[in-house]
Amino acid sequence: MDDDVIFQVTSGFEDIAVYCSTYTSALPIILLLGFFTSTSMQRWFSLVTTMAGTTKVIANFVMSIKENQPEGHQIVQQYTRWILLGWALTFRLICKPLKRVFPNLTSLQNAGLLQPHETLLLEREPASNHPLVVIHWNLTLLKLCNRKGIFMDISDYGRNQDLLMGFKKSCGDTIKFASKNIPFALIQAVTITVYSFGLASLMARQLTEKHTPTSFIIKYFPVLNTFQYFLYYLWLKFGRLAAYPFGDDENDIDIKRIFQAHIEDAVRWLSLYSSPGLTDQLVSMSLHSSSNEWMINA
Amino acid sequence: MDDDVIFQVTSGFEDIAVYCSTYTSALPIILLLGFFTSTSMQRWFSLVTTMAGTTKVIANFVMSIKENQPEGHQIVQQYTRWILLGWALTFRLICKPLKRVFPNLTSLQNAGLLQPHETLLLEREPASNHPLVVIHWNLTLLKLCNRKGIFMDISDYGRNQDLLMGFKKSCGDTIKFASKNIPFALIQAVTITVYSFGLASLMARQLTEKHTPTSFIIKYFPVLNTFQYFLYYLWLKFGRLAAYPFGDDENDIDIKRIFQAHIEDAVRWLSLYSSPGLTDQLVSMSLHSSSNEWMINA
Amino acid sequence: MDDDVIFQVTSGFEDIAVYCSTYTSALPIILLLGFFTSTSMQRWFSLVTTMAGTTKVIANFVMSIKENQPEGHQIVQQYTRWILLGWALTFRLICKPLKRVFPNLTSLQNAGLLQPHETLLLEREPASNHPLVVIHWNLTLLKLCNRKGIFMDISDYGRNQDLLMGFKKSCGDTIKFASKNIPFALIQAVTITVYSFGLASLMARQLTEKHTPTSFIIKYFPVLNTFQYFLYYLWLKFGRLAAYPFGDDENDIDIKRIFQAHIEDAVRWLSLYSSPGLTDQLVSMSLHSSSNEWMINA
Amino acid sequence: MDDDVIFQVTSGFEDIAVYCSTYTSALPIILLLGFFTSTSMQRWFSLVTTMAGTTKVIANFVMSIKENQPEGHQIVQQYTRWILLGWALTFRLICKPLKRVFPNLTSLQNAGLLQPHETLLLEREPASNHPLVVIHWNLTLLKLCNRKGIFMDISDYGRNQDLLMGFKKSCGDTIKFASKNIPFALIQAVTITVYSFGLASLMARQLTEKHTPTSFIIKYFPVLNTFQYFLYYLWLKFGRLAAYPFGDDENDIDIKRIFQAHIEDAVRWLSLYSSPGLTDQLVSMSLHSSSNEWMINA
Amino acid sequence: MDDDVIFQVTSGFEDIAVYCSTYTSALPIILLLGFFTSTSMQRWFSLVTTMAGTTKVIANFVMSIKENQPEGHQIVQQYTRWILLGWALTFRLICKPLKRVFPNLTSLQNAGLLQPHETLLLEREPASNHPLVVIHWNLTLLKLCNRKGIFMDISDYGRNQDLLMGFKKSCGDTIKFASKNIPFALIQAVTITVYSFGLASLMARQLTEKHTPTSFIIKYFPVLNTFQYFLYYLWLKFGRLAAYPFGDDENDIDIKRIFQAHIEDAVRWLSLYSSPGLTDQLVSMSLHSSSNEWMINA
Repeated sequence: MDDDVIFQVTSGFEDIAVYCSTYTSALPIILLLGFFTSTSMQRWFSLVTTMAGTTKVIANFVMSIKENQPEGHQIVQQYTRWILLGWALTFRLICKPLKRVFPNLTSLQNAGLLQPHETLLLEREPASNHPLVVIHWNLTLLKLCNRKGIFMDISDYGRNQDLLMGFKKSCGDTIKFASKNIPFALIQAVTITVYSFGLASLMARQLTEKHTPTSFIIKYFPVLNTFQYFLYYLWLKFGRLAAYPFGDDENDIDIKRIFQAHIEDAVRWLSLYSSPGLTDQLVSMSLHSSSNEWMINA
Repeated sequence: MDDDVIFQVTSGFEDIAVYCSTYTSALPIILLLGFFTSTSMQRWFSLVTTMAGTTKVIANFVMSIKENQPEGHQIVQQYTRWILLGWALTFRLICKPLKRVFPNLTSLQNAGLLQPHETLLLEREPASNHPLVVIHWNLTLLKLCNRKGIFMDISDYGRNQDLLMGFKKSCGDTIKFASKNIPFALIQAVTITVYSFGLASLMARQLTEKHTPTSFIIKYFPVLNTFQYFLYYLWLKFGRLAAYPFGDDENDIDIKRIFQAHIEDAVRWLSLYSSPGLTDQLVSMSLHSSSNEWMINA
Repeated sequence: MDDDVIFQVTSGFEDIAVYCSTYTSALPIILLLGFFTSTSMQRWFSLVTTMAGTTKVIANFVMSIKENQPEGHQIVQQYTRWILLGWALTFRLICKPLKRVFPNLTSLQNAGLLQPHETLLLEREPASNHPLVVIHWNLTLLKLCNRKGIFMDISDYGRNQDLLMGFKKSCGDTIKFASKNIPFALIQAVTITVYSFGLASLMARQLTEKHTPTSFIIKYFPVLNTFQYFLYYLWLKFGRLAAYPFGDDENDIDIKRIFQAHIEDAVRWLSLYSSPGLTDQLVSMSLHSSSNEWMINA
Repeated sequence: MDDDVIFQVTSGFEDIAVYCSTYTSALPIILLLGFFTSTSMQRWFSLVTTMAGTTKVIANFVMSIKENQPEGHQIVQQYTRWILLGWALTFRLICKPLKRVFPNLTSLQNAGLLQPHETLLLEREPASNHPLVVIHWNLTLLKLCNRKGIFMDISDYGRNQDLLMGFKKSCGDTIKFASKNIPFALIQAVTITVYSFGLASLMARQLTEKHTPTSFIIKYFPVLNTFQYFLYYLWLKFGRLAAYPFGDDENDIDIKRIFQAHIEDAVRWLSLYSSPGLTDQLVSMSLHSSSNEWMINA
Repeated sequence: MDDDVIFQVTSGFEDIAVYCSTYTSALPIILLLGFFTSTSMQRWFSLVTTMAGTTKVIANFVMSIKENQPEGHQIVQQYTRWILLGWALTFRLICKPLKRVFPNLTSLQNAGLLQPHETLLLEREPASNHPLVVIHWNLTLLKLCNRKGIFMDISDYGRNQDLLMGFKKSCGDTIKFASKNIPFALIQAVTITVYSFGLASLMARQLTEKHTPTSFIIKYFPVLNTFQYFLYYLWLKFGRLAAYPFGDDENDIDIKRIFQAHIEDAVRWLSLYSSPGLTDQLVSMSLHSSSNEWMINA
């Protein structure tokens, strides 16, 4: 009876081993990962190239305002602040690390991006509308500038509108990317497939090794086997990363750092209006000491 | 004789099992799904990014009309209403849920998007021409504005035409997407393939398990098998979803909600002309209490 | 000897069956079809989105001509007719159904799209140059309008040139698509492969069934087998359709219907200049009875 | 001993046959060809749609010069000639058949595209810079036109610059395509793979047929086998064609014929300035005999 | 005992050979390489077509400055130098060979691209901000030109801003490409897979050959086997090249040569302003000796 049990268990194990061997065929996994990853990467690359930037819209506004206007400094600064605010309100909706930095409107107010009376107005609207509201304010500011006649040229009114609309569209596209991307259920399924493949390949290996007479194989080749699994794991991880690019992973897009860079850049472009003295000095200094040394090599 | 019958039945069943095992090879299914889904997804992503929006065309018109004009409010409001009407008439053609909300022109009239005399004119044309007719009206309105000289600048006449033509094109592209997409017969065939694969894999499984001595396998591994099928089912569902994005499924694009959002946005942009008082107040309040606190971190 | 012959024939048949079974492996067929169809579909989708339209170029011209000009009606109508003529001359080159409608220039003259003296000029050139000649005429017309000073604004001269050049380019791209697409020899080869696969899979099936003891399989499973072949056939048909989108197939792009729609649209846009009375009336009627009922829901 | 040798040879041959059978598995070849061809075709299609055209840049220049200017004819003609020269100098670099037509600058001079003193200047520069030098001349010509004030409108100066820069960019992109495309070594490797596959599949067939009792198979099925190989050969040829589109193959893009067409078109656009009489006559004839017959069908 | 050891070793070796044979299946490798390479090539082609160029931004600036202005030469030269500096500072960040040419700001100063007081300002900022700082200087220069009124037309101010912003964006995209491309870990894994496949396929071959009676196979067929491996190696190399296009490999994009070409081009465009005499002479010479010989063939 004991023998029978052992036989049953052994043959049962062997069955599993055979089953696992079929299951661990690398081809379906590779195809699955290939299609999944190339799809999520195409999306990710298109996101990276279209992600909303603030430089163009800010620099163009600053450049198009006449110099030495009353309230010129405040207007330019306010437009810039609202662009940054719109950016922050957009990425807050889709990026958890930024959401942790700005959990509510008060935190944005504390960062100086929002004024108290603006907070009151924003609080009346759902969070998904906040970026639109801020763009609405900026459009009003453009109208005000036009009414005051502080644009360098009549065409600047239209150009700034176009750039603001472009900014609005890329904010909207980013939200669309986050909400209308590869569905969660599919990613979960691919993940479980790869993990269960790893488990099954482990079992299949241990059992087939049993009837080999050498321990040589055990020593060297499971390394290759594990490596193969590791490759699929890496591939999967890359596909997941591309599907959720705004998470906490160290390879994710670091929105917090990018926002900081946007603020620093904004200050730089602002200085074109607010404190042009220093750069003007540099420009004229360079002009007077100009040399064509660099042309000699050509 | 009894034995013979049993043998015949058994061997017949075994034949089917063998046949099914060949049929249930995962590779063709994965390749089929891979190519099918990546094609329909590429189409879907391109739809999502090019889907007609109303913001740009409305906001630009509102911004380009001189302030304090007689009939200014009505003109701006009418242009906006017709843009929304054109959007609704477009998506009514291709999206069943919206078709249920607006089954006929009277329902649009009840929603205030259409006036009685406009309904009479639209009824003379086939439904597929309705969006074009409404764009025709808006072009006439642009001519009227130009004749009245209420554009801020001569270039606004051309810019608004361009934006209106862009709106027309994206409406046309959306209809093209719905009518000239992956053919129904192909999708149906892929669906039946995946379903019959599920059935065949079930039969193959039950029979091979017969001659294994342990029930261990039955307990644990059909789970994995079912899971594999579930993965293909999910993949297929995703591909179908991408091919028919405007259906009733909970993952489909919710056109009704989007239309509601377009109306709300339109009201917001309209307020730039119709009731600028409130936002102007906000803008000047913000201007006078401006601080550069946010720059300090930079 | 009889037995030997029977044996020889039988074993010969079995060899064929084995050969066919190898040949009927679904994988190469699926891969072949997958790559072929996804390539031709990518091309097809890009064609559908870039196919030359007439709306933009016509509507912009009509909108840019000053009202109440002498010969204004004729100029606007002639420009429109030539755009439609250019479209017809382009698609005649690549689309057989349209070629049957307009087999020669006389048929276009009978349709009123060409005048007798224009036919004489076109007949001097090869058919592939006809669209270019007509665009040349339209450029001359633009120059005439500019000389007469009947453009609303100086920039309209340039904008209409740009749009006309865009129209020329999309006509050229369509011809390129038809002449520089997936080569005929490759499509023919893929087609024969799928057909011979169907034949081979049929033979393989009949022979293997011989040594199965049950007729059960014959009854139910060839259904699945035929279905599998039907799927490949559908896939192939879709790929071929995408490679030759302008044929006689019922799923092909119906160029004749599209041309009819372009004519109807052209008449609509023309009415913006020629008979604005009716639409103007509608616009002012709507303006005076305007209500903001639709805003209430927002 | 004889028997032993025969046995050795036979079993050696069988080994090769088995080896060949493994090697002739169609799947790797199909995958290799699938990825290779779809990559080179994507590149090729993008080349075909972006290949430098001369129409837009020439026609716009001709249309933007005021009529009846002194030297107007010469200026327009010279600009056109230099655009054609730039095109020829670009495609000479990458297309062998055109290189044979224009082996050196003297041949271009003989064709009337280059004047003797221009040849002297070009000879100082390496061939890869020639297109840039000619664009430099055209920029100078634009400056001259601006200085002379013969542009219809101030904006024409900028527009012609933009178009010239666009022409320069598409010339540069074409050169990039030819120099930075799929590397030669890879194409060579794919080619040898397909050829050796053909050889191996031939050997495998001849040997396996030895032990089949019927000659039936030899009669009918090698046809299918050869056909399969022929398919791969076609596929490969198509991929190679897409990788080197400017060669001597009859399916290649016929640059010589295209250049001839560009010259003919250029003469057509030039006639807009140089000899407008004929077309003007046509336009006014058409205007006076205009009918709206074509509208009746609508 | 000796026999037993030999048996153990032999059977152990045979196990490895069998293991290696499974491992050396070409399909997973081909699929892996196919997906990997087509992804990295798509990225690479998009890089090549969008890589920042300096021609457009420089030539447009030069063309838009009024002739014979005080300091005109210096302004035009300085703008050009800063564009080239911005390009060099960008590619220094991502391209090792250029980093070796310009290891620090002093080396740029020695090349005449940077002036001492500019170096001082740049040193205050992190290297990743350098391109932005230089674009900031150029924006200031544009403001100065506008203030001085040396633009040919008011619209030139805006156009040059747009081009400068376009230059900024393409610099940013290039940096994004280098930093947010296919992750290093994945490439490493693919590389090791292909190398270990080569090793395994070598072992599998040597052992299976042992029990074949002919040395014929060893003589001829390892050639094919090695060739197959060589193909994968080539494919991999191509994929890696596309992932890191700015390295030291001879097939990489030669940034140093490209930078030299940009400098030479810049000198050419500069001569449009600084020394137009020579080209003007050429233009008028060509004008006076113009012939329409080239039109005769048409």
